Amino acid sequence: MPSDSFQTSTSHSTATAISTDQKDFSDGNPLCIDELPTPSLVLDLDLFEANLQKMSQDSKNSSIQLRPHAKTHKCPEIAKRQIEAGAIGLCTSTIYEAEVLANSGIHGLLITCEMIGLDKAKRLINLTRNQPDTLSVIDDHSHANFLNDIAIKEGVRLNVLIDIDPFGRRTGTTPGDQAFNLAESIMKLPGLNLQGIHSYSGASSHVVGFTERKAHSEKVMEGPIESFLRMKKAGMPVEILSGGSTGTYNIDPFLSEMTELQVGSYIFMDVDYQIIGGKNGPVYDDFKPSLTILTTVMSKQHSDIATVDAGIKGFATDREVGPEIKNLTGIKYQFGGDEHGILHLEKPSQEIKLGDRLEFIVPHCDPTVNLYDYLFCRRGEMIVDSWPISGRGHR
Amino acid sequence: MPSDSFQTSTSHSTATAISTDQKDFSDGNPLCIDELPTPSLVLDLDLFEANLQKMSQDSKNSSIQLRPHAKTHKCPEIAKRQIEAGAIGLCTSTIYEAEVLANSGIHGLLITCEMIGLDKAKRLINLTRNQPDTLSVIDDHSHANFLNDIAIKEGVRLNVLIDIDPFGRRTGTTPGDQAFNLAESIMKLPGLNLQGIHSYSGASSHVVGFTERKAHSEKVMEGPIESFLRMKKAGMPVEILSGGSTGTYNIDPFLSEMTELQVGSYIFMDVDYQIIGGKNGPVYDDFKPSLTILTTVMSKQHSDIATVDAGIKGFATDREVGPEIKNLTGIKYQFGGDEHGILHLEKPSQEIKLGDRLEFIVPHCDPTVNLYDYLFCRRGEMIVDSWPISGRGHR
Repeated sequence: MPSDSFQTSTSHSTATAISTDQKDFSDGNPLCIDELPTPSLVLDLDLFEANLQKMSQDSKNSSIQLRPHAKTHKCPEIAKRQIEAGAIGLCTSTIYEAEVLANSGIHGLLITCEMIGLDKAKRLINLTRNQPDTLSVIDDHSHANFLNDIAIKEGVRLNVLIDIDPFGRRTGTTPGDQAFNLAESIMKLPGLNLQGIHSYSGASSHVVGFTERKAHSEKVMEGPIESFLRMKKAGMPVEILSGGSTGTYNIDPFLSEMTELQVGSYIFMDVDYQIIGGKNGPVYDDFKPSLTILTTVMSKQHSDIATVDAGIKGFATDREVGPEIKNLTGIKYQFGGDEHGILHLEKPSQEIKLGDRLEFIVPHCDPTVNLYDYLFCRRGEMIVDSWPISGRGHR
Repeated sequence: MPSDSFQTSTSHSTATAISTDQKDFSDGNPLCIDELPTPSLVLDLDLFEANLQKMSQDSKNSSIQLRPHAKTHKCPEIAKRQIEAGAIGLCTSTIYEAEVLANSGIHGLLITCEMIGLDKAKRLINLTRNQPDTLSVIDDHSHANFLNDIAIKEGVRLNVLIDIDPFGRRTGTTPGDQAFNLAESIMKLPGLNLQGIHSYSGASSHVVGFTERKAHSEKVMEGPIESFLRMKKAGMPVEILSGGSTGTYNIDPFLSEMTELQVGSYIFMDVDYQIIGGKNGPVYDDFKPSLTILTTVMSKQHSDIATVDAGIKGFATDREVGPEIKNLTGIKYQFGGDEHGILHLEKPSQEIKLGDRLEFIVPHCDPTVNLYDYLFCRRGEMIVDSWPISGRGHR
């Protein structure tokens, strides 16, 4: 099934093959987006910067601080821009993400997962030695004692938040006496410096409907807020109550006592976030989808099907929603293999031909970014920079 | 909820933090597996080597050649061992995988995805210039003409297989006249060297039940085999009929005319393959699960739940099955976030404590390996080597 367009769509350039990962954009010579290999992870800088500014302005308006979550991007270049836009630091999930950001000069790091085991504890000590404002979380007495022993031995004082479970049954101690007792114990440990509470409700972030989401977050955060007030009343030096997500960025600032938000997805957005509904409509569009995967139609053998070169290694598969084609309608994506995506051409708003380059909004941004080594930054149709996703991988 | 075991399970060593990715195992000093950071991707070399040998011996017994698929591992060290065990080359899905293997001295590369677009075509040319036995696939007349034009211009002859669709509607031309006509066209193109047929039935590989799987593969491969015979009869120099998978390794060698198998998963195995059923029983255990993810219990706040530090960035999420705990029973894994896995302790065969290090068989091997940068190789409880997964990422 020959396609006339195929020659056209690939013969525009006679350049040699591109080693984009070695291209140095500092020479001021951008690439045309048509020259990128596929699949590629593409960031629309105009949309990204608008998202950054909106979150920054909103947090200023509601007098809450931002410590955005770097698990979303794992990218020092993005972290730097979040700091420039006013963030007080960055959250990370892993010690490796934190090390990578620290090496890029990012301060105010909060590792939101418990650093269990000797390897992580030692690396946390090293990180804190270099960046004394580093924070991590604790939900267990024996862990507190363990970190305290190492900290004393190594001559470093570790800043910690108590991780309190907002009914998620994932990590975190129970609000009330358990949390308070843990805080009291930590106060007696000279190697640890209690600074507040961490309480992240992943379950709230994707509740569909603004009213329902607000009610959910208000309910689950009651316990952590009570614990925070009780600790303050007892004279503990707790200054931080950290939580919240992109889904509750316009809800949690109005919970009493919350001091900072660990928003992540707002910079990129994804299909999964769009469907939760906004404050004023059925689509959550406060932030715009800035992140896409650029693909190529690699096979076109049937009138109702086309196959692109991005599959389960090109998009995250953890959510019920799939990739969504950008700027076109009537085309449904289905995973078709490691490097295959099958497009069902139900009523395509444009004829799809072999060699066509098609872009997709990602189903879930964090684990999609994790599949790539570079973000290619676009202005219009030009690729003006590439940013390494240095914090990905497990190290 | 303090745990007595926590101190024990982490206090066995006073070594400094490990930078395993920088460790040089050539000094002959292995690591204890307890020293690995978590999550880590661990390969049991004894099981891996047994899988390698069994597939090698079986292919010799049935007189079929092996060109194993490197999309499973993306790892030159594994490719080298597959060649040493008798493979005639390696399949890859992407041009980058092929480039990485070629740089490691692997010959006989077959890229099983259509190389559409100028970037991939140019890179295919460069690869073939360095390794003249490189093969790729074509399912379309315009693509054949396009590759031919570039090949002539660049002074390289590209070896190609016709990609024939075994009823998968993903890629590949239709068997019969369409495939034959494409072969006739390619025979007239001086830049292309037709060598045979590629026909991979992903749908056959996971059919549950050996009898059903055999019937499925026999049916869908009828068309490609007929095409192969017709091309031979017409005097075309077709020598290769490549297809098959780990699920059909003991089926496809007995289809007439199949010359080689592109088995992938047999080296690692995974939960998804175990459930397809074997020739002689309900569990497919011809090959043993050699690949695990090592995790740490990072939170233990409830009697019925423990949380480990590997989630949707630590395991592939594309299949219905999840990770399966190794050597223990009564524990069910549930995805709990980017770096969180929630264990439901239904009737655990062993008490689970904070800091415990638990291993999981992976749900689906190929996309799980793709999440990591290194394979850590174990002999018993010692880590004796680390192999970079150099072909991962999209470049």
